[in-house]
Amino acid sequence: MEVIVTQENLSFALNNTSRVTSTKAGLPILGNILLRTDKSRLLVAATNLEVAASHRIGAKVTKPGSITIPARLLNEFIQNLPKEQLTLTAKDNKLHISSSTSSSTINGSPDDEFPELPTIDDKKAVKYTITASDFKQSVSQTIIAASGDSTRPILTGVYWHSFEKKLYLAATDGYRLAERHITGTSSSVNAVIPTSTLQEVLRTLRDETVELDVLFDETQVTFRLDEVEITSRLIDGNFPDYRQLIPAASETNFTINRTELIRVIKIASLFARESGGGIILNVDSDKNTLTINSIASEIGENSSEIPVVSSGQAASVSLNSRYLLDALNVMSSDEISFGFSGKLAPCVIHEITKSPAYKHIIMPLKS
Amino acid sequence: MEVIVTQENLSFALNNTSRVTSTKAGLPILGNILLRTDKSRLLVAATNLEVAASHRIGAKVTKPGSITIPARLLNEFIQNLPKEQLTLTAKDNKLHISSSTSSSTINGSPDDEFPELPTIDDKKAVKYTITASDFKQSVSQTIIAASGDSTRPILTGVYWHSFEKKLYLAATDGYRLAERHITGTSSSVNAVIPTSTLQEVLRTLRDETVELDVLFDETQVTFRLDEVEITSRLIDGNFPDYRQLIPAASETNFTINRTELIRVIKIASLFARESGGGIILNVDSDKNTLTINSIASEIGENSSEIPVVSSGQAASVSLNSRYLLDALNVMSSDEISFGFSGKLAPCVIHEITKSPAYKHIIMPLKS
Repeated sequence: MEVIVTQENLSFALNNTSRVTSTKAGLPILGNILLRTDKSRLLVAATNLEVAASHRIGAKVTKPGSITIPARLLNEFIQNLPKEQLTLTAKDNKLHISSSTSSSTINGSPDDEFPELPTIDDKKAVKYTITASDFKQSVSQTIIAASGDSTRPILTGVYWHSFEKKLYLAATDGYRLAERHITGTSSSVNAVIPTSTLQEVLRTLRDETVELDVLFDETQVTFRLDEVEITSRLIDGNFPDYRQLIPAASETNFTINRTELIRVIKIASLFARESGGGIILNVDSDKNTLTINSIASEIGENSSEIPVVSSGQAASVSLNSRYLLDALNVMSSDEISFGFSGKLAPCVIHEITKSPAYKHIIMPLKS
Repeated sequence: MEVIVTQENLSFALNNTSRVTSTKAGLPILGNILLRTDKSRLLVAATNLEVAASHRIGAKVTKPGSITIPARLLNEFIQNLPKEQLTLTAKDNKLHISSSTSSSTINGSPDDEFPELPTIDDKKAVKYTITASDFKQSVSQTIIAASGDSTRPILTGVYWHSFEKKLYLAATDGYRLAERHITGTSSSVNAVIPTSTLQEVLRTLRDETVELDVLFDETQVTFRLDEVEITSRLIDGNFPDYRQLIPAASETNFTINRTELIRVIKIASLFARESGGGIILNVDSDKNTLTINSIASEIGENSSEIPVVSSGQAASVSLNSRYLLDALNVMSSDEISFGFSGKLAPCVIHEITKSPAYKHIIMPLKS
């Protein structure tokens, strides 16, 4: 292989692909980056067998070929070269890189040991085009509710599915649930994407990225954004029928300033270590106030009051302060609404916008 | 105790003092902040027995008194309160904090368990007033050469001393040495300050800080900056007579662009893992070039060339790339000068400025 590329292009491609390499023992080849000529381009790719990332950059190919090179060394090395043309030559399982002032050789391995890169058949796939901002917000808002517990793999992903001609994202860990409507759809989709894949796509999105394509087949999903393609396996199994858990209405409703509530919950959470993060929210519908209390016999206690606009009966609910902060931090409206139905029913949180697309449910703590 | 203070003042004082608390087992009181009224001010102080930090803030004192409170909880709590007046009331070993919207109680301990805060007698102390920028640069440039090895405590500090009517800072770990001239002096000082104390002072310096006072007595040093006072014990013992190690002249001298050299050494260091960071610098006085080589049989090899302006004979020296990067990163001039005297003699690095105040010496590796 012999190609000429610019340092900027190669550096960018390595940044976007080297994160998915795997350094787990057993398969050292997964720690390598694949470089392979592809007509007048150079394919830069990596895989950890769950997710694969590939990037094609412009190249002057004088001799087609391929090689695989340890990702971390290659990436750090290329990042530190000056912005100029680089000549890459692969021979005898070594990659020779020369620039105007330096000459280096990195030992590699042949590409026949490298796993085949997964592909998706465009013709058979269901395809969505989503704006980068919708994608970012929808994924950030749902991913927080996904479970970290690998004993129930289905809950460790985000559930992309069509329902009544709309595409929804949903996630739940059994204690909280997040659902976000993303776009209209006429096709049917039913797929659970690993959170690690979605985080990888979030990291790859640049400020300049306007939109991305998401393609589903039976077992895989592919994200195409600018020159990068990320393909991942889907999580096997059926996502629970979460819609039945969302209360249709609540007995007590109130609206509150989001920023002020975040500040007060942060304070309360400092005193909630003994109770595992549990804090008590009291709505007084006559005084139109929310009082937040936390007590830790060893360290002290805290009580704060915030004005609200409430309707329905007075209510007192014990909630996990960390779950509350997670939810409030991914919302964007100034004012948000809460719905309580007694001590044991799920608490429902909405953004207050023209067309609310996001719902967050938190199960109360037994107090 | 009953005082009224502003959240901004208290929050700033807690930020500056809570870092020196100690959470080591055995003396839990060292994890507390001392709050004590002092005429019309509130003293906020912490100590880990090696370093003590104290800060006096304006307060409306309605009832004199004192209490000690767990630092981390108090600090996080106060940071999250809105910018308004706070009433602090200490009673029965509890601190009650009330603001317009919240009311909290934090359990504390009486101040009679708190260690006495060290003080220095101004009349008996040697005092220097140093500009904040001189302090920052001089400490950053020398602290990097101090040793991390606690078996030779004297080398784990920075040596502040007067020599020929000048105040110098110096540090060495036996493999490298940094010396910086800081100001003129007519008094005599001879003190080794722990690096942790200097780092604490660096962290406490604000962008607005113009100058600071440094006071030495026989066993202690005090730094006074704005409203903060940091007092530390000195390291016991005699600092080695390092001046004899600095070569008066070198056989090969060259000047080189600092930024370009940093970039090339970073690349070379990637290939220097097997050699413990060792890279080889070759000066060719005829071609006026510096060639940097590193070889790692397992991963590959690298060679780069940079133009220099050299005098004297050709030379080849093996140096630790991390030491070189440490030294180059704390220098500020565009061009720097190197002096070599064969494979085994110390390498001398200077900034190229009107009045060079900084010298860095690195011992070559045996190759």
